[in-house]
Amino acid sequence: MTAPTSAGSAATRAPIEYAEAPAEVRAVYDDIMNTRGTDWVNNYWKVLAHDPPTLRRMWAAARQVMGPGALDPLTKELIYIAVSVTNACRYCIASHSAAARNKGMTAEQFSELVAIIGLANETNRHAVALDLTVDEQFR
Amino acid sequence: MTAPTSAGSAATRAPIEYAEAPAEVRAVYDDIMNTRGTDWVNNYWKVLAHDPPTLRRMWAAARQVMGPGALDPLTKELIYIAVSVTNACRYCIASHSAAARNKGMTAEQFSELVAIIGLANETNRHAVALDLTVDEQFR
Amino acid sequence: MTAPTSAGSAATRAPIEYAEAPAEVRAVYDDIMNTRGTDWVNNYWKVLAHDPPTLRRMWAAARQVMGPGALDPLTKELIYIAVSVTNACRYCIASHSAAARNKGMTAEQFSELVAIIGLANETNRHAVALDLTVDEQFR
Amino acid sequence: MTAPTSAGSAATRAPIEYAEAPAEVRAVYDDIMNTRGTDWVNNYWKVLAHDPPTLRRMWAAARQVMGPGALDPLTKELIYIAVSVTNACRYCIASHSAAARNKGMTAEQFSELVAIIGLANETNRHAVALDLTVDEQFR
Amino acid sequence: MTAPTSAGSAATRAPIEYAEAPAEVRAVYDDIMNTRGTDWVNNYWKVLAHDPPTLRRMWAAARQVMGPGALDPLTKELIYIAVSVTNACRYCIASHSAAARNKGMTAEQFSELVAIIGLANETNRHAVALDLTVDEQFR
Amino acid sequence: MTAPTSAGSAATRAPIEYAEAPAEVRAVYDDIMNTRGTDWVNNYWKVLAHDPPTLRRMWAAARQVMGPGALDPLTKELIYIAVSVTNACRYCIASHSAAARNKGMTAEQFSELVAIIGLANETNRHAVALDLTVDEQFR
Repeated sequence: MTAPTSAGSAATRAPIEYAEAPAEVRAVYDDIMNTRGTDWVNNYWKVLAHDPPTLRRMWAAARQVMGPGALDPLTKELIYIAVSVTNACRYCIASHSAAARNKGMTAEQFSELVAIIGLANETNRHAVALDLTVDEQFR
Repeated sequence: MTAPTSAGSAATRAPIEYAEAPAEVRAVYDDIMNTRGTDWVNNYWKVLAHDPPTLRRMWAAARQVMGPGALDPLTKELIYIAVSVTNACRYCIASHSAAARNKGMTAEQFSELVAIIGLANETNRHAVALDLTVDEQFR
Repeated sequence: MTAPTSAGSAATRAPIEYAEAPAEVRAVYDDIMNTRGTDWVNNYWKVLAHDPPTLRRMWAAARQVMGPGALDPLTKELIYIAVSVTNACRYCIASHSAAARNKGMTAEQFSELVAIIGLANETNRHAVALDLTVDEQFR
Repeated sequence: MTAPTSAGSAATRAPIEYAEAPAEVRAVYDDIMNTRGTDWVNNYWKVLAHDPPTLRRMWAAARQVMGPGALDPLTKELIYIAVSVTNACRYCIASHSAAARNKGMTAEQFSELVAIIGLANETNRHAVALDLTVDEQFR
Repeated sequence: MTAPTSAGSAATRAPIEYAEAPAEVRAVYDDIMNTRGTDWVNNYWKVLAHDPPTLRRMWAAARQVMGPGALDPLTKELIYIAVSVTNACRYCIASHSAAARNKGMTAEQFSELVAIIGLANETNRHAVALDLTVDEQFR
Repeated sequence: MTAPTSAGSAATRAPIEYAEAPAEVRAVYDDIMNTRGTDWVNNYWKVLAHDPPTLRRMWAAARQVMGPGALDPLTKELIYIAVSVTNACRYCIASHSAAARNKGMTAEQFSELVAIIGLANETNRHAVALDLTVDEQFR
């Protein structure tokens, strides 16, 4: 059991390690490690573990959305990084850059990714500032 | 020559058509159509044409960043859409969705793209709300 | 008196015209028109008028912040537009572009403004993606 | 008096302590501590104190908006946190989480808050990506 | 069956009505209407229906997160609106304002909500611009 | 030559110093220092140097957009800061605040800048929450 904690305090946001985790949390940790073929779980899941229903729901969502499908696994990580950079989420950039490296991202691909993210953020603002009408051909 | 216009008014933001464009602008339009193998230019460039140095600079940037490289052309468009959705730029989503379709995006890939963009925006906020520490393994 | 309305519905968001406005609202409208030397009030204030204390507070804030000071009036409007474009606020871009034109913004200045906003949004994302350390010289 | 400082430097952003504050600043600090029933003032106000008119205006605004009204005090803090997480403002999340705890936020409420913030950010992007039309029933 | 469609085109984003929906989609629509006690389904779900696994996952998430819990239903909607306004998601603001009205939001509560959202966005930027250090008391 | 590095890792994001930089990178560094009249280059450029084509393109863009034009140099920096604060980009705020100080920004101007950025972010959200119609006079 997790000890009673003060909402939103450092305690509520401390990672729950496997050794101290209740069975329902360990079950999710086990599935994360099995799916990934690793022997550790990252802080996102260990902090979310203070709320087991959300932990279970988010892991099921991540497994469904980021798993095998019509887009290849590396492309999925690059899309994830593009969102995380645009939102300035430092943790998310670090974790998904590591995932992308594990899936084969090269230094050249990383450089192109950063350049595209930058350019898209630039032209997005041009389009808004100039109040562009969507071309008939794009509809 | 473009007629004198009131800054930031509807006039400054009206598309400049090929027939009325000065030579330096036509040169960029021609290069856009040649590079894309199309016979028309979309509003982004036709509105940017009020400022020829920016038109030239942005087209050179787009050609360099979105052209052949270490990432395939469709992946580049998906990254662009991910940024544009996160920034809520309607024009940019429409134009780059059309480009992605031209480069072969299927309905299944589009659905997965939307799902990843949504999930990343969700977990980005969890990470921020919970003030997560970057795991040693990600550095 | 404003009629009873359903919260957040079209009715709550309808502009309150001078003729139908209560005295405390008219007093603010009068001050807006006197300060600006105009004979009309824009929708922002006419919709905020459903909440007179907020109307009064926001007008006092706008008058203090956007009034005479260490930055000239046109520069203040350009800063306002830069924020509004970055937030994709269509109403705010339209209203403050009109204000900037009234204060002398030229077409060349508008083009430069748009280019700076775009560039800053681009380099902001580069800085975040690359997790840059602040240089000692900048502290 | 505050000493002359270089604009935007570490000096301009250093907290001004009560002992060194001019009378007009102390008056605001006193009102903050009286209103809250505390014996200290947080950094937001102590840094804003370099600009006394803004300090006075912002405290008046906070007292009006966050004070007793139609929404209960805890709900107001939860709304504040939702905005601050979406904007990735670390200071604001910390300060308003502390305020929410003082007003009784439980660990369960904090978990639900985080889950709602995440979900809303996810569905917001779905709605934008899919360019949804507002249903007639919602108008 | 949904007809083959071009990815991300108007066709992929057209609402799928009950009459034309496959059984797995109708099952979700039925659960939405039963849970809400209504006889219609809004566009968010009808467009998401092009991707049944995402439709099922998102409805399960919404039912879990927005259902009965430690926060009352109206507070949950107010938090949702705060996020949606900050992200400038027009559809989401409209749909969750309607939901909040159904759950009893008054015009006074709506006005306070808008005022808090505005103030939080203002002070968020002050905190970032001034690079505030988190007070020891908030940790 | 830069050594082979793992994409997106700390190595890819380490600044490349002048002494270890290839000739094409040194050429850009030299132009940066000459243009600015300084004897050092900040981390933005030294990290971008892992991707020489992007380094060259971004420096050319910065020189064109931030150089002499219709807006004075200090105004350009203030616009840049306004965008960077709204995007919560800590590096960008630090670097452009330093640039603004070098171009003469006073403490009073900095205070007004922060106040305008805050107010614009507040009213932007009011405009979105209240779904304001653009006044005829602003078109």
